[in-house]
Amino acid sequence: MSEIAKTPQPPYYAVIFTSERSEGDQGYEEMAEEMVNLASVQPGFLGVESAREGLGITVSYWESLEAIQNWKQNERHLMAQKRGKSDWYLSYKTRICKVERDYGFEKN
Amino acid sequence: MSEIAKTPQPPYYAVIFTSERSEGDQGYEEMAEEMVNLASVQPGFLGVESAREGLGITVSYWESLEAIQNWKQNERHLMAQKRGKSDWYLSYKTRICKVERDYGFEKN
Repeated sequence: MSEIAKTPQPPYYAVIFTSERSEGDQGYEEMAEEMVNLASVQPGFLGVESAREGLGITVSYWESLEAIQNWKQNERHLMAQKRGKSDWYLSYKTRICKVERDYGFEKN
Repeated sequence: MSEIAKTPQPPYYAVIFTSERSEGDQGYEEMAEEMVNLASVQPGFLGVESAREGLGITVSYWESLEAIQNWKQNERHLMAQKRGKSDWYLSYKTRICKVERDYGFEKN
């Protein structure tokens, strides 16, 4: 299970990736796990949160727009993006955001 | 099931609300539905996306920071926030973001 990401003080950046999957796995779960592992070792990666309930929402956090751009151009990630369009997703939306403020709560 | 929100051209704003629930419902589902319905009729509301898989992620989209602030101060919403801390959440994080760019994909 994904946990709440431990991000630094804002500003930092978020990529909100919202998706609707097609039927069947077709190698999706394996690639999804590989992509999380690969993203996690990219320069500027700050964390990731993910949940799917019909609709899937994955939010990854980054130090800069440059870090996001580099990850988008990662060779293995480009291959995953291609398969995303051909095999795994009916539709998706990617939103690039600047996190301006945050606050949290933890039960004692 | 939540769908991909139909948001306008950026810039606009996003509130990423990530949470871990406590055990049991305690009126949560009913209030969650009420809050989505109530948010949807607030000035400046653009859409909402939601999924829970252990971790819950709800992203709401807004025209402006002022619209977000007004919704945060809505009386019924303030009551829900209070019950969130006392009854429903072990922890949460709220991130206020400016969506600078977006792109999407839809299968033909």
